[in-house]
Amino acid sequence: MAEEKPYLTGRTYIFRLPKGKDLVESLADFCHDNQVKCGIVQVIGSVANATVGYYDPAKKRYEKEIINEPLELLNLTGNISIQDNRPLVHAHVTLSTKEFEVIGGHLLPGTKIHVCEAYIQELVGDPKVRRSDKVTKLALWA
Amino acid sequence: MAEEKPYLTGRTYIFRLPKGKDLVESLADFCHDNQVKCGIVQVIGSVANATVGYYDPAKKRYEKEIINEPLELLNLTGNISIQDNRPLVHAHVTLSTKEFEVIGGHLLPGTKIHVCEAYIQELVGDPKVRRSDKVTKLALWA
Amino acid sequence: MAEEKPYLTGRTYIFRLPKGKDLVESLADFCHDNQVKCGIVQVIGSVANATVGYYDPAKKRYEKEIINEPLELLNLTGNISIQDNRPLVHAHVTLSTKEFEVIGGHLLPGTKIHVCEAYIQELVGDPKVRRSDKVTKLALWA
Repeated sequence: MAEEKPYLTGRTYIFRLPKGKDLVESLADFCHDNQVKCGIVQVIGSVANATVGYYDPAKKRYEKEIINEPLELLNLTGNISIQDNRPLVHAHVTLSTKEFEVIGGHLLPGTKIHVCEAYIQELVGDPKVRRSDKVTKLALWA
Repeated sequence: MAEEKPYLTGRTYIFRLPKGKDLVESLADFCHDNQVKCGIVQVIGSVANATVGYYDPAKKRYEKEIINEPLELLNLTGNISIQDNRPLVHAHVTLSTKEFEVIGGHLLPGTKIHVCEAYIQELVGDPKVRRSDKVTKLALWA
Repeated sequence: MAEEKPYLTGRTYIFRLPKGKDLVESLADFCHDNQVKCGIVQVIGSVANATVGYYDPAKKRYEKEIINEPLELLNLTGNISIQDNRPLVHAHVTLSTKEFEVIGGHLLPGTKIHVCEAYIQELVGDPKVRRSDKVTKLALWA
């Protein structure tokens, strides 16, 4: 791989997300309100329900799964970049049920925050912009 | 969401945790001994056993699950803040068994370190303090 | 635990890994090409297949599991240190299938990148070197 241009670490945040709101939308709103255009995000906590996706490379779209029960949020790992001139949070989640069964996927809207503690590290450098990719039909970095 | 006050990144640690000791207690001891009062933590490795919790919002308490076999620690994600004047590590873990089954939850005492490699990033700013929340009976940030 | 010597944060990278290449080898190549000798790594995305390991403490070796289908990469958490004078990436992965079943383990060669977005934070300080440990037969930090 060619030499890659490094980013600078910008602002750092650690905070609780608003109870009852949508998880991925709250993260994107936070980034918009604080003008975080690039960075990484981590969350742990619990959610009231969840909607996750599996990208099917044959169908070139996400299959959706809805879990309608309270879940532990074992891990949310994500990144922040720009899509359509707005901060976009791309995040994957791992969740566990009351029976300690683990489920996970690409985080979709339809995941309600119960108690979620977030960490965001802003990165400063060349803008990372998502654009529709013809092959995968995903919005990818150039 | 309102504008949030950023933190500064403080000291950074990467190290192996002591074999045979309790995972969450070792992390808290490390933070106490090094006076890390706020930050984030990540660990991967293996454990000799595990005790994890699921927060039941109806009962307002954690249901406990004990796994008495060696496990891969796929991921520990956590944060460090203050509770009762001492650093408190809030961590969630994802684990896998010999049969490659995945289990996880809120990390509780009763999880013995085999080989665990930790990363801690201290954050410097307004103290984050956990206080008992009447609604959830959890110790939450204000 | 004794007082631990902190590291400095070095260069920071956020980038897409090359489609079709091996995941753990690509990460190690990136570190070699950019001379990242110590640090942490996180990845989310999707893979075309996966090979993961479970360390069996009785047998003192990894049991291998191969999953021959496209998977969501819910989380890769890892660290970078030196083994045999080359950057070595030690990473654990959590993956989910089309049926939203979750599997995971120690990341082994034989995991092909589909779309993977990586974050690497270099750490600067005393070199961390892996050497064969007699008890576990793993390559561990001193």
